[in-house]
Amino acid sequence: MTDQLQKKTKVWSGRFSEPISEKVQEYTASIGFDKKLALFDIQGSKAHAEMLEKVGILSNEELNKILDGLNRIAQEIKENKFNWKIELEDVHLNIEARLTELIGEPGEKIHTARSRNDQVATDMRLWLRSEIDIIAGLIQSLEKSILSQAEQHSNSLMAGLTHLQTAQPITFGHHMMAYHDMFARDYDRLLELRKRVNCLPLGSAALAGTGFKIDREFVAKKLGFEKVIDNSLDAVSDRDFVLEFLNFSAILMIHISRLSEEIIMWASDNFGYIDIPDEFCTGSSIMPQKKNPDVAELARGKTGRAIGNLINILVLMKGQPLAYNKDNQEDKEPIFDSVKTIKDTLDIFSAMLRSIKVNKANLKKPFDRSYTTATDLADYLVAKQTTFREAHEIVSKIVTFAEKKNILLQDIPLKTFEEFSEKIEEDVFEILDCEGSIKSRSHVGGTSPDQVLNAIKTAKLKWQACLKH
Amino acid sequence: MTDQLQKKTKVWSGRFSEPISEKVQEYTASIGFDKKLALFDIQGSKAHAEMLEKVGILSNEELNKILDGLNRIAQEIKENKFNWKIELEDVHLNIEARLTELIGEPGEKIHTARSRNDQVATDMRLWLRSEIDIIAGLIQSLEKSILSQAEQHSNSLMAGLTHLQTAQPITFGHHMMAYHDMFARDYDRLLELRKRVNCLPLGSAALAGTGFKIDREFVAKKLGFEKVIDNSLDAVSDRDFVLEFLNFSAILMIHISRLSEEIIMWASDNFGYIDIPDEFCTGSSIMPQKKNPDVAELARGKTGRAIGNLINILVLMKGQPLAYNKDNQEDKEPIFDSVKTIKDTLDIFSAMLRSIKVNKANLKKPFDRSYTTATDLADYLVAKQTTFREAHEIVSKIVTFAEKKNILLQDIPLKTFEEFSEKIEEDVFEILDCEGSIKSRSHVGGTSPDQVLNAIKTAKLKWQACLKH
Amino acid sequence: MTDQLQKKTKVWSGRFSEPISEKVQEYTASIGFDKKLALFDIQGSKAHAEMLEKVGILSNEELNKILDGLNRIAQEIKENKFNWKIELEDVHLNIEARLTELIGEPGEKIHTARSRNDQVATDMRLWLRSEIDIIAGLIQSLEKSILSQAEQHSNSLMAGLTHLQTAQPITFGHHMMAYHDMFARDYDRLLELRKRVNCLPLGSAALAGTGFKIDREFVAKKLGFEKVIDNSLDAVSDRDFVLEFLNFSAILMIHISRLSEEIIMWASDNFGYIDIPDEFCTGSSIMPQKKNPDVAELARGKTGRAIGNLINILVLMKGQPLAYNKDNQEDKEPIFDSVKTIKDTLDIFSAMLRSIKVNKANLKKPFDRSYTTATDLADYLVAKQTTFREAHEIVSKIVTFAEKKNILLQDIPLKTFEEFSEKIEEDVFEILDCEGSIKSRSHVGGTSPDQVLNAIKTAKLKWQACLKH
Amino acid sequence: MTDQLQKKTKVWSGRFSEPISEKVQEYTASIGFDKKLALFDIQGSKAHAEMLEKVGILSNEELNKILDGLNRIAQEIKENKFNWKIELEDVHLNIEARLTELIGEPGEKIHTARSRNDQVATDMRLWLRSEIDIIAGLIQSLEKSILSQAEQHSNSLMAGLTHLQTAQPITFGHHMMAYHDMFARDYDRLLELRKRVNCLPLGSAALAGTGFKIDREFVAKKLGFEKVIDNSLDAVSDRDFVLEFLNFSAILMIHISRLSEEIIMWASDNFGYIDIPDEFCTGSSIMPQKKNPDVAELARGKTGRAIGNLINILVLMKGQPLAYNKDNQEDKEPIFDSVKTIKDTLDIFSAMLRSIKVNKANLKKPFDRSYTTATDLADYLVAKQTTFREAHEIVSKIVTFAEKKNILLQDIPLKTFEEFSEKIEEDVFEILDCEGSIKSRSHVGGTSPDQVLNAIKTAKLKWQACLKH
Repeated sequence: MTDQLQKKTKVWSGRFSEPISEKVQEYTASIGFDKKLALFDIQGSKAHAEMLEKVGILSNEELNKILDGLNRIAQEIKENKFNWKIELEDVHLNIEARLTELIGEPGEKIHTARSRNDQVATDMRLWLRSEIDIIAGLIQSLEKSILSQAEQHSNSLMAGLTHLQTAQPITFGHHMMAYHDMFARDYDRLLELRKRVNCLPLGSAALAGTGFKIDREFVAKKLGFEKVIDNSLDAVSDRDFVLEFLNFSAILMIHISRLSEEIIMWASDNFGYIDIPDEFCTGSSIMPQKKNPDVAELARGKTGRAIGNLINILVLMKGQPLAYNKDNQEDKEPIFDSVKTIKDTLDIFSAMLRSIKVNKANLKKPFDRSYTTATDLADYLVAKQTTFREAHEIVSKIVTFAEKKNILLQDIPLKTFEEFSEKIEEDVFEILDCEGSIKSRSHVGGTSPDQVLNAIKTAKLKWQACLKH
Repeated sequence: MTDQLQKKTKVWSGRFSEPISEKVQEYTASIGFDKKLALFDIQGSKAHAEMLEKVGILSNEELNKILDGLNRIAQEIKENKFNWKIELEDVHLNIEARLTELIGEPGEKIHTARSRNDQVATDMRLWLRSEIDIIAGLIQSLEKSILSQAEQHSNSLMAGLTHLQTAQPITFGHHMMAYHDMFARDYDRLLELRKRVNCLPLGSAALAGTGFKIDREFVAKKLGFEKVIDNSLDAVSDRDFVLEFLNFSAILMIHISRLSEEIIMWASDNFGYIDIPDEFCTGSSIMPQKKNPDVAELARGKTGRAIGNLINILVLMKGQPLAYNKDNQEDKEPIFDSVKTIKDTLDIFSAMLRSIKVNKANLKKPFDRSYTTATDLADYLVAKQTTFREAHEIVSKIVTFAEKKNILLQDIPLKTFEEFSEKIEEDVFEILDCEGSIKSRSHVGGTSPDQVLNAIKTAKLKWQACLKH
Repeated sequence: MTDQLQKKTKVWSGRFSEPISEKVQEYTASIGFDKKLALFDIQGSKAHAEMLEKVGILSNEELNKILDGLNRIAQEIKENKFNWKIELEDVHLNIEARLTELIGEPGEKIHTARSRNDQVATDMRLWLRSEIDIIAGLIQSLEKSILSQAEQHSNSLMAGLTHLQTAQPITFGHHMMAYHDMFARDYDRLLELRKRVNCLPLGSAALAGTGFKIDREFVAKKLGFEKVIDNSLDAVSDRDFVLEFLNFSAILMIHISRLSEEIIMWASDNFGYIDIPDEFCTGSSIMPQKKNPDVAELARGKTGRAIGNLINILVLMKGQPLAYNKDNQEDKEPIFDSVKTIKDTLDIFSAMLRSIKVNKANLKKPFDRSYTTATDLADYLVAKQTTFREAHEIVSKIVTFAEKKNILLQDIPLKTFEEFSEKIEEDVFEILDCEGSIKSRSHVGGTSPDQVLNAIKTAKLKWQACLKH
Repeated sequence: MTDQLQKKTKVWSGRFSEPISEKVQEYTASIGFDKKLALFDIQGSKAHAEMLEKVGILSNEELNKILDGLNRIAQEIKENKFNWKIELEDVHLNIEARLTELIGEPGEKIHTARSRNDQVATDMRLWLRSEIDIIAGLIQSLEKSILSQAEQHSNSLMAGLTHLQTAQPITFGHHMMAYHDMFARDYDRLLELRKRVNCLPLGSAALAGTGFKIDREFVAKKLGFEKVIDNSLDAVSDRDFVLEFLNFSAILMIHISRLSEEIIMWASDNFGYIDIPDEFCTGSSIMPQKKNPDVAELARGKTGRAIGNLINILVLMKGQPLAYNKDNQEDKEPIFDSVKTIKDTLDIFSAMLRSIKVNKANLKKPFDRSYTTATDLADYLVAKQTTFREAHEIVSKIVTFAEKKNILLQDIPLKTFEEFSEKIEEDVFEILDCEGSIKSRSHVGGTSPDQVLNAIKTAKLKWQACLKH
């Protein structure tokens, strides 16, 4: 048995007659991934130690040694000099063992009145809170990129699609703002779930609390937690906060997947709506002419990852009896992966979106072969006292006629129009024009350029307000 | 072609040369399930019509006819006399056709300035808001059942488990309160997502808004919506609110599955912790002695449904380009199913939980063969100036000794204790007692009866406050 | 208590002091959905009764009465005259009760040596086997539609895409055959899993088998099962066959979703590759000019359903202890739904695909603005003793040049070519031609028309061979 | 630009005006994970080169240099000396660049007639085939551990449970054999899907095949593939084989989760059925008396991972148009993770299961407080000419009586029995005995010890036969 293993034995296996097998050690150890939590573990331990001193369990001298030791360990970790040992299972025991190595006896007191069950829950919440704040910032950056495109193209006519069929004229800016609003909802959800992340489990010990006279409010305050978790069993076994975050991630990635789908389509030869700068594309090892929108494709693919991670933890939690079970160790890798995925994706989309060049001429191509103002024509008839259903029918016939003749609506002579409805007059040609069509949609939420500019203005104010806080 | 089909033709297929095939009609029609939205569709249409009158598109007389007609249709639906027709595809066209049948020309005007795209989004949000309010009430009921058990058993000793191994003494009331807190989080999440459900899509028409001078704020106010959705493309294509609700449902059902798992285990012969009244059990067609906890088993199984429905819609939305695509018609059945699942489950759990009889003697059985106060013994040593790690090691040896002798900790003579540590004195026997152990855990969140009673009191105040609003 | 309820009481609740509550009855009853299994339940009961007679548990007279009664019940069900009762919980007890009502005492003997646990597993397997055979036929139909398109277009040039960017020339027939091969794999998987569905659970009774001297091989033979399930605990609790089928369905629907995605894109104005007959499209309630590819969109959306159902059952089975648990009642609705989904989808795709009109001119449009034979040019240089990497680099430069000049490769004068590489000679223009490019790819699996025709021929032979069996 | 980057530029970015940004490089590079495929990439390249020589594209001398160079690279990789470069994106370009560095010009020819699209598909299939063979062996090992327990306990009485309620007597060996049969199905599925993995994509190049006169059958034979993939588009874009494997993994882990659930429950104090050796358990950092079944808990938790990975790829593939898209790069990490998960889990379960000690006395505990032979009593009455339903009812009453008196069935005096049915005679006490009950279930699949031994014998023959092949 190695020295380290003996040290570990001291930690929990005093009554074990056989040492753990190497295979089991590898299967059960979490140090390979939970070392990512190390600095948060130290942060938590420092607050815990200060509380222990405050309530008289540690002397002031002991506390100072502990804080000192923990600071040194933090330094070692930052400098990549810390020697992680798989025999010590996890980040908690690794740090505790090193602490005792560094400062002796006081190190053996740090685990008083706590358990790894409440400790790891605390680490996870501190880590996630910190990542949430980074992600919030990244969403803001992405929103700014979107707003910059929307602003440039608040007036750029585009064929709006439903069912991927040409539907009605819109502007590219209006289209962009739909994505702005999706990510704005993601942002709101993130801030809401942050409250439920930002709660203190420490003090729950293994599952029942502890007999020491601890001061949980003090620890919560030290660590910036808004709330002490009310029930000790719940505190050590709850992973709702992980699920909530993973759901946020899944919805965010759904939004990214929709945007990616459009970027890929827009960049294809048949659309030709946009040009993505070379730096965001890659080439082919065999076809010299290729330029592929890899970033958008990968991001679309990574949606699977975000959803898979969510399901992973839902399955993990299903049917688990109280309180802590080892199953929960499996909560880490999926959330680490989802956090990395959305951080990387938001960051790169923010840069890519800003740099995309829009080909305004191509945005309008579908107008040349479709009847996007047919609804406007129907509405024109309604304004002239036709019922909407009758108007719809008349216009259907006009469209059929135009299709057969292979002409556009604006190319139909007034005389022909009159045969379909005598209510149609010279002024019809104004509303058959796409520019006129978008301008007319000037209510809240409509596609008219002034409404789009309004929406952009409101959005900018929102993000400025966020920054101030 | 039937009469009905001709009517439908009038609605949208004026330019279609071939009638839709019957197979396609069945594949694409949604009337089989979306008729569940009928009363909300009517509610939305009434507000829309009032707005059309307000802005001068309908006359007052037309409006009155429309309101009258819609009221009559609502009556027909409630009395199960409405004749739903598959040829009319969906709930919207069925109601519109009937309206025109009843009141003539004004019926043909109701669809002015709207599309089925914004209409169905409105219906879904009205429906879901209404279900959310019912579910909120059902969660409150369940919480009351839990509180009633917790109150009865705030003092009932129970072997607390981690890893399903006997860990430390807790109380049954404390255990119940862990579930209370899970469902309380569900409740909070539900209220938060309600805000994002409670927004108005109407006025977005197909995707771009409309050229009519509509008043969306008026409609929002009429329908009790808190907010007009800002972007028309987003309004018709967004299904975040469905995803958010399905995620809420999945987490709620995870909680139910954990509680069910425990109920099933507790009711088994080896545990014998609880007795479930006959009315919540079923028997066997072959084994006359059986009494099965079917409700809890089914509920645990239904977790799969809630998670499956969530995945369904995540997959549905993945990679969808803007704006509305027919894929979205598939959003209804899963959310209908999840709503029904959680309503039924909450309702029956509320009744079942209240009626469960706890066998207090059996709750304590594991104490007879385990060492649940070993941590208390270690803490005792810490209080006497042993470091926690040293104390842990000493107690490990004592437990090993007790196991070999096949005795419990409290049966070890003081003399023997002294051989392990001279710090152990006569007063050790107080802390080896389970009652003493739980009482000592009297900080916020701890398992001591007074803390549990405090938590119950706070919870009751929360629910009373909710009722007032 | 109603009469029916009393009858039910007789079945299993002889020792229950309280009747089941109505709420519980509704929550736990499966009759709402498992009546779909009725005819298979009867088929199983008939074989079971014949076995009971063979081994002497029933007299010949009793058997005849039972067979007679069951046949009458089957008739009632087919004629929709059977009176299903929720108080009788499920399809099994409903039929048994009716049998006893019809024939008296022998009816009370039918449940000898069996349990609902092995009975329902038998019903599910009989039902699923029958659906599998229908689905196998539907896949064959779809394959024929694909083959018919492939045959018509074995020679129709099309811009092959990777990353949705124009890559190399292919034929539409070759593209179609990729889908043929996907569905052919689905077919193979279906036949393989059928073997594991086609096994007999009956005789396992509740979980342990029965003390009666039954003959399981006889029952298996009667019901056409290939195998008796070896272990009684496994027989009643296994749902692998459901999972395997749901996985088959999920992969099949993934294939459908990919094809749908392409159909939708191909039918869009920017592509214009295909025209879908009106009968497979629907229109818009607001935009008179619209013709939407609803069938393909819905099918793409239904992929979510197939995946959701798979996850549902995976979650259901996770962590279930042996043997039968009530959770398993939840296995039915998802598989019923997936079976319906894929049957309907295969059927309608089979018809739609056959009728799609391909616009050959548009298939080639991307050639006018891209460099699809760049790889051929590189390969040409390789044939003239350039290394592939050098060739790739030379061609990259040529493409850059052409892009700048805004000309296609075939429009570059030979003299200019020679400046890039002196190995380029007059014959280069042959290989820059798309027709030449596809013809050259004439190895197995390549896109040349003769290879596509070969593949079609082989496929036809496969399906003919299937039909013979 | 670094030297490496310039080299890369040579590979595909000859026409790119801007270098790829570092952020994009990191986001799109796969070398961090696909280097796991390196030796399979080399294996594939060697076969490809041999084919190129056979058809005259490479000289014999060039081939020898290439083979030599590839062998040296393989050696470098095995010795961990290969210098992986992120600028070279992936495993393919890293190895090709190193090859050219080592052997010069011939290295630039290796990519002739292939693309990374068909190359990576080939690598994945070679790698997966090799892992499948390892996994097949691990399943066999696990099966042997199960058989060894089943053999030791073919006669060990155990209370069989349904709904976790005591149902009927079975043996522990019979229970074990249920798991044997589940894993045997997994094995069969694995061998079936192996056929569909074991197919050659190489020769499909980017998507359309190649104009070189390649010999795909030769390559397939060299690499041990059973079949050349028929369609080049399908070959580069298909990931069915990944999905099939992930589904196999998910079902396997479901079986593991069920077994784990039971192991955890059996090891709990309330059950006390088994003792898990210390080497497979871990202790608590706070509770000195704890011994936790961590391995089984972690394995149960890892089920989430297996299911999450499956969903990940299902979502990834949903709606992807043909042919290759960059999304597919995301297929690797999930399948790498699932392969590792099931290999580690099978391995450790194989060892753990073999070493578990069964406490025979506790297996029977539930008999002391339940009525497990009630079905036998009903069957006894049936044998004496009572109908099953009548018998079931009589026994229900007897059980109710016994419960009230708090006695077991075998303790009811004959006289009392006679009051319930005069058909009950002295011989009833034989069948009320659990030993008699299991012995009577001696048909195929029943729980009688002789049947269990038969099943074990058959299973052993199966695995011996597998080994021979």
